[in-house]
Amino acid sequence: MQGSMSELNNEISDFVSGKWQTEINVRDFIQRNYTPYTGNADFLTEPTQNTLKLWDECLELFKKERENGGVLDMDTKIVSTVSSHDAGYIDKALEKIVGLQTDKPLKRSMQPFGGIRMAEGACNSYGYEVDKDVARIFKKYRKTHNQGVFDVYTPEMKKARHAAILTGLPDAYGRGRIIGDYRRIALYGIDRLIEDKVEQHSSLDGEMRPEKIQLKEEIAEQIRALKELKEMAMKYECDISKPAKTAQEAVQWLYFGYLAAVKEQNGAAMSIGRTSTFLDIFIERDLKRGIITEQEAQELIDHFIMKLRLVKFARTPEYNALFSGDPTWVTESIGGMGIDGRPLVTKNSFRYLHTLENLGTAPEPNMTVLWSTKLPRGFKEYCARISIKTSSVQYENDDMMRVIHGDDYAIACCVSSMVIGKEMQFFGARANLAKCLLYAINGGVDERLKEQVGPKYRPITSEYLDYDEVMERYDDMMEWLAGLYVNTLNVIHYMHDKYCYEKVQMALHDRDVKRYFATGIAGLSVVADSLSAIKYAKVKTIRDENGIVVDYDIEGDFPKYGNNDDRVDQIAVNLVHSFMNKIRKHYTYRGSIPTMSILTITSNVVYGKKTGNTPDGRKEGVPLAPGANPMHGRDKNGAVASLSSVAKLPFSDAQDGISNTFSIIPNALGKDEVFIGDLAINLDCGCCEGNSDTYFSKESRINPVSSPIEKTKYITSPKKEEVTKV
Amino acid sequence: MQGSMSELNNEISDFVSGKWQTEINVRDFIQRNYTPYTGNADFLTEPTQNTLKLWDECLELFKKERENGGVLDMDTKIVSTVSSHDAGYIDKALEKIVGLQTDKPLKRSMQPFGGIRMAEGACNSYGYEVDKDVARIFKKYRKTHNQGVFDVYTPEMKKARHAAILTGLPDAYGRGRIIGDYRRIALYGIDRLIEDKVEQHSSLDGEMRPEKIQLKEEIAEQIRALKELKEMAMKYECDISKPAKTAQEAVQWLYFGYLAAVKEQNGAAMSIGRTSTFLDIFIERDLKRGIITEQEAQELIDHFIMKLRLVKFARTPEYNALFSGDPTWVTESIGGMGIDGRPLVTKNSFRYLHTLENLGTAPEPNMTVLWSTKLPRGFKEYCARISIKTSSVQYENDDMMRVIHGDDYAIACCVSSMVIGKEMQFFGARANLAKCLLYAINGGVDERLKEQVGPKYRPITSEYLDYDEVMERYDDMMEWLAGLYVNTLNVIHYMHDKYCYEKVQMALHDRDVKRYFATGIAGLSVVADSLSAIKYAKVKTIRDENGIVVDYDIEGDFPKYGNNDDRVDQIAVNLVHSFMNKIRKHYTYRGSIPTMSILTITSNVVYGKKTGNTPDGRKEGVPLAPGANPMHGRDKNGAVASLSSVAKLPFSDAQDGISNTFSIIPNALGKDEVFIGDLAINLDCGCCEGNSDTYFSKESRINPVSSPIEKTKYITSPKKEEVTKV
Repeated sequence: MQGSMSELNNEISDFVSGKWQTEINVRDFIQRNYTPYTGNADFLTEPTQNTLKLWDECLELFKKERENGGVLDMDTKIVSTVSSHDAGYIDKALEKIVGLQTDKPLKRSMQPFGGIRMAEGACNSYGYEVDKDVARIFKKYRKTHNQGVFDVYTPEMKKARHAAILTGLPDAYGRGRIIGDYRRIALYGIDRLIEDKVEQHSSLDGEMRPEKIQLKEEIAEQIRALKELKEMAMKYECDISKPAKTAQEAVQWLYFGYLAAVKEQNGAAMSIGRTSTFLDIFIERDLKRGIITEQEAQELIDHFIMKLRLVKFARTPEYNALFSGDPTWVTESIGGMGIDGRPLVTKNSFRYLHTLENLGTAPEPNMTVLWSTKLPRGFKEYCARISIKTSSVQYENDDMMRVIHGDDYAIACCVSSMVIGKEMQFFGARANLAKCLLYAINGGVDERLKEQVGPKYRPITSEYLDYDEVMERYDDMMEWLAGLYVNTLNVIHYMHDKYCYEKVQMALHDRDVKRYFATGIAGLSVVADSLSAIKYAKVKTIRDENGIVVDYDIEGDFPKYGNNDDRVDQIAVNLVHSFMNKIRKHYTYRGSIPTMSILTITSNVVYGKKTGNTPDGRKEGVPLAPGANPMHGRDKNGAVASLSSVAKLPFSDAQDGISNTFSIIPNALGKDEVFIGDLAINLDCGCCEGNSDTYFSKESRINPVSSPIEKTKYITSPKKEEVTKV
Repeated sequence: MQGSMSELNNEISDFVSGKWQTEINVRDFIQRNYTPYTGNADFLTEPTQNTLKLWDECLELFKKERENGGVLDMDTKIVSTVSSHDAGYIDKALEKIVGLQTDKPLKRSMQPFGGIRMAEGACNSYGYEVDKDVARIFKKYRKTHNQGVFDVYTPEMKKARHAAILTGLPDAYGRGRIIGDYRRIALYGIDRLIEDKVEQHSSLDGEMRPEKIQLKEEIAEQIRALKELKEMAMKYECDISKPAKTAQEAVQWLYFGYLAAVKEQNGAAMSIGRTSTFLDIFIERDLKRGIITEQEAQELIDHFIMKLRLVKFARTPEYNALFSGDPTWVTESIGGMGIDGRPLVTKNSFRYLHTLENLGTAPEPNMTVLWSTKLPRGFKEYCARISIKTSSVQYENDDMMRVIHGDDYAIACCVSSMVIGKEMQFFGARANLAKCLLYAINGGVDERLKEQVGPKYRPITSEYLDYDEVMERYDDMMEWLAGLYVNTLNVIHYMHDKYCYEKVQMALHDRDVKRYFATGIAGLSVVADSLSAIKYAKVKTIRDENGIVVDYDIEGDFPKYGNNDDRVDQIAVNLVHSFMNKIRKHYTYRGSIPTMSILTITSNVVYGKKTGNTPDGRKEGVPLAPGANPMHGRDKNGAVASLSSVAKLPFSDAQDGISNTFSIIPNALGKDEVFIGDLAINLDCGCCEGNSDTYFSKESRINPVSSPIEKTKYITSPKKEEVTKV
C-alpha cells in the first residue's frame, strides 16, 4: 500500500493532498482541489471540426437506425459482459474519448442475465434471433432474474400484477437506479480500488451468517468485475490500473467505468452521477500546465457526451410501451452548492450544458442542474438561456437535498437522490391507489377483469357511498396492498441480487451502502377527489348484473384537489402518510429503508387505461393525473393554488420524490432571461419512468435530435420552497 | 385432488387403506400393508439364467474398466442432469430393471455444478478432456459450488484447510448424505408428488423474507426436477406419472428416483434408504395374484442391485486419495423392528442379502442390517451366514436408533441415521483435535508447516509440559477451532444450496425438513493419551531452532485410553463433551442442529500424515487411530476393556456416530454360526469416508467382486449396549 500510495502521489503531486489519498474519498479530493467558477459563459468555445464531423457521423447513424425501424443492429451471439467485446469505434481517428457497448456504434448488446425471454423478445421484435447456443445456456444452465422471480411469485402477486394494481414492477427488466462512483477510476486507478475491495473482503471475516456470506461473495464478484474492467480498457489500449494523468485520461477512465456498467446492466435508469466538477479539476490542471486549450477541453466533453448519447439497450415492445420509448436515464447532476458555502459550479459545469449547443438538443444524457438560490448568477443565467433554447435541462432543489445528503449526492433516474458511492436504491415502481379504492368498494373484485384479485373483504352494498364506511374499507384494502407490494418487491430484489447482481456498479461503492427500498404510488389525486366527492357530495353506485360497482353518479359539487382547499388537500396528505406507514410495517430486503415516491409522468397513462370508472367522475381508461398533479382541468384557482395543494404533501412520507408536471408558455412569463432564471422557471426534460408523451415522442429517444420538444415544467418535492414563491 | 385420489385408489385397491392415501406417508403404507417374515432362508432361489448372463456382461465391463486404468469411458460433452441422456442399456433384452447414468454402462457422467475444475480434473486424470463449450459455460456464465466457496473463504479458512487442521471439507466435492424417499415415486407416482409440492409452494405465500424466498424457490426447482424425472423415465418407455401397478414397476419407479439423484449429484455418499420391506409389499401382492414367481421376484431384486453396483462417478485423484477409492455409499438399510413390536423383516430383506450370494460379494450397495436383539432368529442366522460368507454386511443398532428416529429411518453413508424424507444432513467432515493440541502448545504455529495458522496465543515455553497450563491453552485453541470450523461449514452449505442444490433428492422430502449440521473430530485417542502422558508421566518438549516444539520425550508410564481406565477415559469423555459444546455456541446455517461424529476409518491415515509428533509418543506421519479407536497396540487389557473405554463416550455429544474398528479371526469365536449371530459379532464392510484400506483395496471398489476381503468388526455408538455384553 505504501508503494502504490507513493506512485499515486507522483502522478497527482500537483493536487492538494488530503484524506482522499489514504482512503477512497472522492468528495475530499473535490473539496480540496476544485476551482469554483462565478463568471459567465463567455469563455465557452465552438465545437472543433473533428467534433462536428464525428457528430455528423453519429447523426447519420441515428438516421439509419430510424430508417431501419428503430434499431440499427443487434448482437445475437455475444453475451454482453464488461469485457465481452472487442474495441469498437465510430471513427477512431476522430474520437478523443473511445468505447462502445459492442464492437459497432448503435449495435445493441445482448443481456440475458435479467431474463432470456426478454432478450429473445427484444431481438424478435426487430427481426433478430438470439443465438441458439446462448438461448440453451440461459434456459438450461444459467437461471435468470426473471425466472427466479416467477419461481417464487404467489398467485396473488401474479394477479395483482396482471390486474395492474401493482404496476411496472422491475421483474422483467433491470431495476437500475444504482450509480457507480465512476470518478473513482480516474482518481485512483483500478489497482488501488481492487486493493480497497480486497481489504473490504478481509474485513468480513469472522462469523458466517447468510447476509455476511452474501456480501462477501458480492465483493469477490466486484473484484472480478474491476479486473475485467481493466481488461476491457486494454482493448482500447488504455491501462487504467493507475490514476488518470491528464484530463483526457480522466474523462476516458471515468467513461470506461460507466461503459462497463451499461455493458453489464440493462437497467431502467443508468445514471452517471455528478462528474463535471470532478473532471474540471483535471482540466484546470492541464490548462494550467498548458497542455490543453479551452477548445480541446470542450472537445473532450463534447466527445464524452456524444458517447453517452449513443448508449442504447435492447428492449422489448412491452418495455417501450410502459416507458413510452427506451430511455436510458443517463442523468448527470450539475452544480449545486457545497456545505461550506462555495458553489460547486466550475467551468466544466458550463461545458456540459454547452454540449446542448455544440451538438444540439437531446434527452440524453439527462442534464440535471442542482439548483440553489445561491448559485452564481452567471451560471443561473446560462442555465436559463440553455433551458429556453433547448428545453433539455432538468432542475432539482439542491437547497433541500443538501440538508439530507450533503454535497456529493446525485440524481438517479429523474429525482431519486443518493450519495454517490454510499447509497443505492432498490427501485420498486408503483401501487395504483385509485384501483385500490375500487377494490375497497367491490370487496377485492377487480372492476375491469371482474375477478377476485384482492382479499374477499365485505363489499359495500349500499346504493350511496358513505364516507366513513368507504374509508374503513379503504384502510383495510391499503393494508393488504402495502403488504403484498412490499413482499413482491422483496422477491424481486432478492432475485436481482442472486441472478443479475450489479457487480461493476457496486464495485464503485463503499462496503456498507445505505439501501433505499423505493416504493411508489399512482392515482393520488383521483383518490383524493373521489373521497372528497363521497364526503361532500352524494355518490351513487351503479352496479352491473353481478352487483359489482362499475360506475358512479355524483350529485352535487365537492372540493377538488389542486385548489389549495384543505378539505380535500388534507385527504391527500393523510393518504400519503397512511400508505407510507403501512409500507413501513413490513420487513424490507437487506435492511433497506422504505421510501415512497408520487412520481408517475408517463405510466399514469397506462395505469389509467387499466383503471375503471372512479367516484370522482373520471371515466374508465382516462389517464390518472401524473405524479402528485391535480386531475387535468380541476385546478381552477390558478397556478399558485394548484402548486400549494401539491406543496402540502409530506416529504417525510415521500422521500423518494413528489412530481408535479405542467406546461407553461415561456412568453407568458416575459422574455427576460434573467427574470426567468431567478424565478427558477426551468424547462426540463425529466420524468420518472421514461420520457413523457407530452414532450418526447418515442422517436425522439431513438433519434434525440430530430423531434420537437415542448416546454414543460417539472417539480419535485425538494423544490417546494421555491415553488411557493412563484 | 379427488380425481387423482380415486385413480390412485383403483390401482392400489387391494392395499389396506389409511392416512397414506390422503397425505404423503410411506411409513403408514408400510405399516398397514407389510407382511413380517419370521421364517428362514429356505425360500430363496438361485439366480435366473438371465441374471447370470447379465451379471457376466457386467463383470466383463468391470474387467475392461480395470484394464483401462480404472475408468471405462467418460462423458465429456453432456452435462449430466436428470433428463440429459438418452436411454442406455447393458443388454436390453435381459434387463428387468433399466436405467443408466449415461447412455452406456460404466460411462461416467460429467457433473460440473459442484466445480468445473473438479470435473476437468476428473477427466484429465483419465486422459479425457471436458468439452470446450461446457468449460466455457461453467467458467463464464454458470458459477459453481466450488467457486462460490472460494469466493468467500477467509485466509484463515484456507490456511486451516491447507494445514489439515480442518480436513476433507466438502468444498470440492458434493456433500452427499441426503437420502431421497425414492419409495414415494412407486407408491404415489410423480403427478401426485408434484401436486403435493405445488401445495407446499402455495403454503409459503405471505411475508417474503430471504429464508422463505429461498425455500419457495427450491420447491419450484423441485417441481421442475420431478417433471424432468418423468421425462427421463419416458426415455425408457416408462410412464411414472401414476403409481406402480406391479412389483416390477415398483422396483423400477423407485430405481428411477435414485438414478435421477445420481445423475444430478456426485455426492460423497448417495445412499438409497430403506426400500426392501416397502418393495416386499408389491412383491407379496404379485405373488398372491400369481403374476410373479419367487424366482422372478429375486430376479427383480438381483437386477436392481446390479444397477446399484454400476453406479460410478467421475472423481479426481485427490478425492480418491482422501477416500481411498471412489466409494458411492449406496447404503440400504434392512430389517429393524417396528415401534409396534413387529419386526420390519420381510422376505425381501432376505432377497437383498441373497444378492451377495447370487451375484457374489460387493462393497456396494452398502447392505446395512438394522440390528435388534428382537429380530427373528431366522433372519439373524441368515445375516450371520452371509456376513461370514461375504464380509459384506454392515450392522447398526436399531434398538438405540429407533428410540430417537422411530422406525422409518435409514443410514446415510455408513452411520448417519435420518428419518427418510423428513431429515437430512449437512455433511461436514472433521476437525483434527490432535493437531489442535499441538497448536495449543505452539501458540497456533503449525508444527509441520512452521507457519502461523491458528491464533497467536502465547505458546508454552517451559521445558516440561504442565497439565493445567496445557489444558487451559488447549481449551482456548479448541474454542478457536470450533468457531472457524462451523463458519467454514456455514460457507460451504450456503454455496452448495446456491450453486449445487439437490433438487431431485429434496423433491422427495417433506417441506419442512429437520437439518443436521454434522461436524466430526479426528485424533481423539491421540489427544487423550497425550494429555494423560502430560498428567501422569513427565513430558519434556524438544524444540527446533525457532523454539517450536517438534517432539516430546516421555519419562515414566501413563494410563492409556482403551484399557477401561477412568483416569484417561474421562479425559476423552470430557474432550468430546467440551468440543461439542464449543460447536454448539455458534450460528449454524438454516437453523440446522449441530451434531458430531468420531468416525474416521480411512482418512485417519491421511490426517496422521499431516500431523507432527504428539506428546503421547506417536511419531509424525503415523496414522491417527480410526474413529474412537484406542491407538494401535495400546489397549493391553483385552477386547472388553478396550470396548468399554469406547463405550464411555457420550452419545449425546456425538449423535452422528462413534466408530471403533477392529479385526477378529472368525475361527477364534468358534464355527457355530448361530452363536456368532446371537453375539452380534457381525462382520461388515462399513466405514465413513470411503472403504477401509484394511478390507477393501481401491481396486475392490472398481471391481467389487475381485479382491480379497478381510473380516473386520465395526461398531457404532448405537451398538454400545450390545458391545458391553461381549
